[in-house]
Amino acid sequence: MGNCCERLGPQKNTYMRVSLPAVCFVWQIAMIVLFGVFIRYDKESDAHWVEYKHKNNLTDLENDFYFRYPSFQDVHVMIFVGFGFLMTFLKRYSYGGVGFNFLIASFGLQWALLMQGWFHSLDLDTGKIYIGVENIINADFCCAGSLIAFGALLGKVSPVQLMVVTLFGVTLFAVEEYIILDLLHCRDAGGSMVIHCFGGYYGLAISWVLYRPNLHQSKHLHGSNYQSDLFAMIGTLFLWMFWPSFNGAISYHGDGQHRAFINTYIALASSVLTAVALSSMFHKRGKLDMVHIQNATLAGAVTMGTSAEFMITPYGSLIVGFCMGIISTFGYVFVTPFLEKTLKLQDTCGIHNLHAVPGMLGGFLGAVVAAAANEDVYGKEGLINVFDKEGKYANRGMGTQGGYQAAGTCVSIAFGLVGGAIVEGLILKIPIWGDAADDHCFDDEAYWELPEEEEEILPPVLEYNNHMTHKSQDIAESSFCAEQC
Amino acid sequence: MGNCCERLGPQKNTYMRVSLPAVCFVWQIAMIVLFGVFIRYDKESDAHWVEYKHKNNLTDLENDFYFRYPSFQDVHVMIFVGFGFLMTFLKRYSYGGVGFNFLIASFGLQWALLMQGWFHSLDLDTGKIYIGVENIINADFCCAGSLIAFGALLGKVSPVQLMVVTLFGVTLFAVEEYIILDLLHCRDAGGSMVIHCFGGYYGLAISWVLYRPNLHQSKHLHGSNYQSDLFAMIGTLFLWMFWPSFNGAISYHGDGQHRAFINTYIALASSVLTAVALSSMFHKRGKLDMVHIQNATLAGAVTMGTSAEFMITPYGSLIVGFCMGIISTFGYVFVTPFLEKTLKLQDTCGIHNLHAVPGMLGGFLGAVVAAAANEDVYGKEGLINVFDKEGKYANRGMGTQGGYQAAGTCVSIAFGLVGGAIVEGLILKIPIWGDAADDHCFDDEAYWELPEEEEEILPPVLEYNNHMTHKSQDIAESSFCAEQC
Amino acid sequence: MGNCCERLGPQKNTYMRVSLPAVCFVWQIAMIVLFGVFIRYDKESDAHWVEYKHKNNLTDLENDFYFRYPSFQDVHVMIFVGFGFLMTFLKRYSYGGVGFNFLIASFGLQWALLMQGWFHSLDLDTGKIYIGVENIINADFCCAGSLIAFGALLGKVSPVQLMVVTLFGVTLFAVEEYIILDLLHCRDAGGSMVIHCFGGYYGLAISWVLYRPNLHQSKHLHGSNYQSDLFAMIGTLFLWMFWPSFNGAISYHGDGQHRAFINTYIALASSVLTAVALSSMFHKRGKLDMVHIQNATLAGAVTMGTSAEFMITPYGSLIVGFCMGIISTFGYVFVTPFLEKTLKLQDTCGIHNLHAVPGMLGGFLGAVVAAAANEDVYGKEGLINVFDKEGKYANRGMGTQGGYQAAGTCVSIAFGLVGGAIVEGLILKIPIWGDAADDHCFDDEAYWELPEEEEEILPPVLEYNNHMTHKSQDIAESSFCAEQC
Repeated sequence: MGNCCERLGPQKNTYMRVSLPAVCFVWQIAMIVLFGVFIRYDKESDAHWVEYKHKNNLTDLENDFYFRYPSFQDVHVMIFVGFGFLMTFLKRYSYGGVGFNFLIASFGLQWALLMQGWFHSLDLDTGKIYIGVENIINADFCCAGSLIAFGALLGKVSPVQLMVVTLFGVTLFAVEEYIILDLLHCRDAGGSMVIHCFGGYYGLAISWVLYRPNLHQSKHLHGSNYQSDLFAMIGTLFLWMFWPSFNGAISYHGDGQHRAFINTYIALASSVLTAVALSSMFHKRGKLDMVHIQNATLAGAVTMGTSAEFMITPYGSLIVGFCMGIISTFGYVFVTPFLEKTLKLQDTCGIHNLHAVPGMLGGFLGAVVAAAANEDVYGKEGLINVFDKEGKYANRGMGTQGGYQAAGTCVSIAFGLVGGAIVEGLILKIPIWGDAADDHCFDDEAYWELPEEEEEILPPVLEYNNHMTHKSQDIAESSFCAEQC
Repeated sequence: MGNCCERLGPQKNTYMRVSLPAVCFVWQIAMIVLFGVFIRYDKESDAHWVEYKHKNNLTDLENDFYFRYPSFQDVHVMIFVGFGFLMTFLKRYSYGGVGFNFLIASFGLQWALLMQGWFHSLDLDTGKIYIGVENIINADFCCAGSLIAFGALLGKVSPVQLMVVTLFGVTLFAVEEYIILDLLHCRDAGGSMVIHCFGGYYGLAISWVLYRPNLHQSKHLHGSNYQSDLFAMIGTLFLWMFWPSFNGAISYHGDGQHRAFINTYIALASSVLTAVALSSMFHKRGKLDMVHIQNATLAGAVTMGTSAEFMITPYGSLIVGFCMGIISTFGYVFVTPFLEKTLKLQDTCGIHNLHAVPGMLGGFLGAVVAAAANEDVYGKEGLINVFDKEGKYANRGMGTQGGYQAAGTCVSIAFGLVGGAIVEGLILKIPIWGDAADDHCFDDEAYWELPEEEEEILPPVLEYNNHMTHKSQDIAESSFCAEQC
Repeated sequence: MGNCCERLGPQKNTYMRVSLPAVCFVWQIAMIVLFGVFIRYDKESDAHWVEYKHKNNLTDLENDFYFRYPSFQDVHVMIFVGFGFLMTFLKRYSYGGVGFNFLIASFGLQWALLMQGWFHSLDLDTGKIYIGVENIINADFCCAGSLIAFGALLGKVSPVQLMVVTLFGVTLFAVEEYIILDLLHCRDAGGSMVIHCFGGYYGLAISWVLYRPNLHQSKHLHGSNYQSDLFAMIGTLFLWMFWPSFNGAISYHGDGQHRAFINTYIALASSVLTAVALSSMFHKRGKLDMVHIQNATLAGAVTMGTSAEFMITPYGSLIVGFCMGIISTFGYVFVTPFLEKTLKLQDTCGIHNLHAVPGMLGGFLGAVVAAAANEDVYGKEGLINVFDKEGKYANRGMGTQGGYQAAGTCVSIAFGLVGGAIVEGLILKIPIWGDAADDHCFDDEAYWELPEEEEEILPPVLEYNNHMTHKSQDIAESSFCAEQC
């Protein structure tokens, strides 16, 4: 059998029976210990709320839960169904898309509660992190950064590698978020900078380090089929519909949440039309491409992340959506193939066009919109409210604020690129992670016990013609080899 | 190749590379300009809210956003996932179902914000339309009218035609809504009249004008398969679950929203049982038909649209659902085939049985329930509240109100039929819109770049038997012709 | 043809054309009559609310609708999409899974409004049941018990049998709920005891009575395929995401709902990691099994049902999720096969591992957590609030409360086992219900008009080779027999 193994090239071992359970158990136990030491209910989720409420003359409705819970559930759906099903588009990697998304988000949100807690919510007197609904939303947001990175790596890495990507992704996220939101005092309610720009460049940097020169060997699996594209549309639509909640979930109560929602809603509608237009224009017979419909229609909302709570005006939002539908579709048609050829950048889901670039542009857009803000448009109190001009930031001019917003965007890019390339690249290249060989990428076979479907569809042929197809033979042979090698 | 082209009959050109991008770009740019001129944030979504709030001694919770946003998101899911996936039931037109739904709703909601704004929310002093969450919900509602019409046309028209249908659909909607709600002062929270009745007859009228005598040529594509029916169930269930929010989304705060939700919830449950019963009764071996489960189970909610906020009583709602499950299933089994034979009416999704008739009945039901309203049942203040008996309508008797409700229903039917037939019929018959030929209807091939699935499933046969099937040959030949012709 | 019938064994008649419509009509009419006699709007959904509000100086926001509606819609999605799509995992019984779930939940919620109303909300003066959003949530909860039982029976019973299972399931549910919540004064916001434990053992008892010794005859249909497992993931994810709302939906306003949500969210995240770990460990090549991902990831939330509103602490929730992911996966791998061999218990969905055992453990966990509660942790008012220590229960010690909680769990097990075995077992064994023969289980063919899919995929083979496959011949023959016999 030596021959066959050679023919298949250097075999990689996708055997996860030790490493995956070990990682899950060790990390989950670590989470329990750290939660035990650090995490407690905040005053709105603690049973003492009833006393606190009476003392401060509040009603139950003023519990932040009622302001944010509906938006939270929308965000939660985006993270698990939105991202998850968007990544089912590969015909033989749908389990991996939705399943690994489920796994890493479940780990990531726990780690995020700790990391974000230490940086943002740590009570220095008691040494505890007090959590409520807003922390939970932020934890989901924090996961999104790593899930975006997963988009670039889809089909090429093992679940253990993804856990590592998430561990470092969440860590880096918490640090850059602290720098951008706390030190630079930027506003970024919908996370153009901290989530999309960071997540996008983080994923691209990892993907660049993990470049596979022979990935074409699994080209036959690197595509969609009619059903898988429909499953992906479930993801697209839930992302599209609930993005207004995403951008408004942690905006301030009242007009902040209300406006973030309206702006995002409008920008998204506009993105759909230009994405459709360009998709048709770029096809030689004017046909639409599902990849563009599934992705570029969302680009407007990514770019609105920072500005959604600002007074960008409804037509401003439309213009943003208009441009981003164009830029993103253009990216899918020209930039991704170009990057793959010249920069050796393999980006399975095209996160460059949906997160990295739109997020970066959203950061700079936010800088411009912030710099242009004034009391005429926002009102005196409104300006204080929107830009949180309190304490030592009370006298920061709007131009300066714009400058800081731009600086924040650069920070997020730097963290993504440098963090992804150095930290991850070095770690993930160690050949112990169980990633699949080049000719077995994009194949659920490596990590999932699959139902015996082939047999179900093709028995008549196989039975009567009494010979196996080339393809089936290859599969049988190669999996036989895999077991031997 | 002249021969083959003749054999295929008069070829229609589905080439969209110019027309579709042109329509999307021109209309989207027009939207931006019109939004720039007219649309502004209302006082609850403007940054001045904080000042307004303090001046009027309000809390953030009294921002309408918190009353209506959860219902809005449910409505939004109904429009994009509900309608979208319900229309994936055709085995080879699922992309078109969910994709074109996405496109036209995204355009429609922008145009609706303008049209409804001019008719309902235009501030005559400033010449501006001030928008907030309620306008956004109404825009989604307005799209629903055109999406219903799309149901009758599914698979038979081009995306450009659908954009035209939506442009006029939204326009007509805004006018009839103005007449019914403002001039006649009808109540119609869930839109039995203004949405379903109008949308249904509008779609049927267009479908009647666009009659295709040789549609049987694409009969082999005009059906579902096991997977596509499951995808459609996603649509059905999200419509079914969230319809209580639909009927209560713009009802008045407090008991209005609460009651609209309870009545719709109850009516829907009842529809399911009678739809199942009739589906089984009408099959010679008592089997259930997915078409009925996907559609007739929803009919009760359509009919409850007008009455949901009235004191129709819980058992009244059950009776409505009971009857509508029967009427709608009966319609799918007998009326649709009858209409196709006698009236030459091709109604792909059977909107006649799910929207047109139930909507009309809902309008008349609302008239009866309104006429029967009295102070005993509603309370003095309650009656004023429910029927908005203020200003010049304070003294309108309930019998009169019932009469106006009935008149409103007739207005919606007239707008649907006449508007659809004349305006649309004349415009859409111009042979420039790129609709598919009769033998290429219900086929995503015409407008979508499809993944190469056929090859994936059938290689063994094709490779070994070394001959192509009749069907494959036909497809290959006809697409070759299409390129040549 | 006598021969063929004999060969197929004792034929069962799946002809439903009389029985299913009869059951639906009779029961629906009974519902209408009983609703007419008993059910009215409560004060918050009645048009008199506006007067009540003014009299009591309330605002519309204090209408319970605004506290509970967002959670309700999440629960509603869990019942219809969550349970429904989770049960589509069988490759040829997906219609039955989602369709019968739809049918019996629609009936069950009506019957639940009555049964729960009589036991909990009956106004003895007027003899009426006054319903609002909380009753509606409870009705959905009550259905859940019967839907869980459906999980054990999936593919083996007729829709008429399921209606009977639901009729008795809801009835038993209302009684045990009355005993546990009212007589024993237990707390069980998320229903570990009253929903999952009861529903689980109820289903297992019925399944045990209906044991089919020759079920292996339909073994070829008793499995999933690549698509059906993806559809099932839709169910899993919506259950997973919205379970925090489930456990908090009827908890008390303020910190109760807030804490129930946080605890469940955290427990679920932890379950995912241990379920993945064990799934990989138990496979000889370390591969993941979709069955575990679809089910065991949810076990933590089931067990948190009772304790979610208690001060179990965030790390306590993590530990619960950790253990349940392990126990549930272990159950799928070892216990279910063991039970089938030794106890003759056929449990299609493995509800033993997802509902029965986790629910029971949740009940006992709740007892322990309640017994450990004290004023230090909860605050004086908090303790009263959480455990509803009012009236005659004001002086019940926490240890006693724990004892009652444990007793409540035993009541739910007893009701499930005895109720399921005796009542249902006796009734359902009467051979009039139209359940499928052993070799036709797990087949939608019996109850659904299926699209002609086989032809669509395989025509080339069938056409050219001009012979039918063994499998197709069997199907054709057996259905021919079925028609003859």
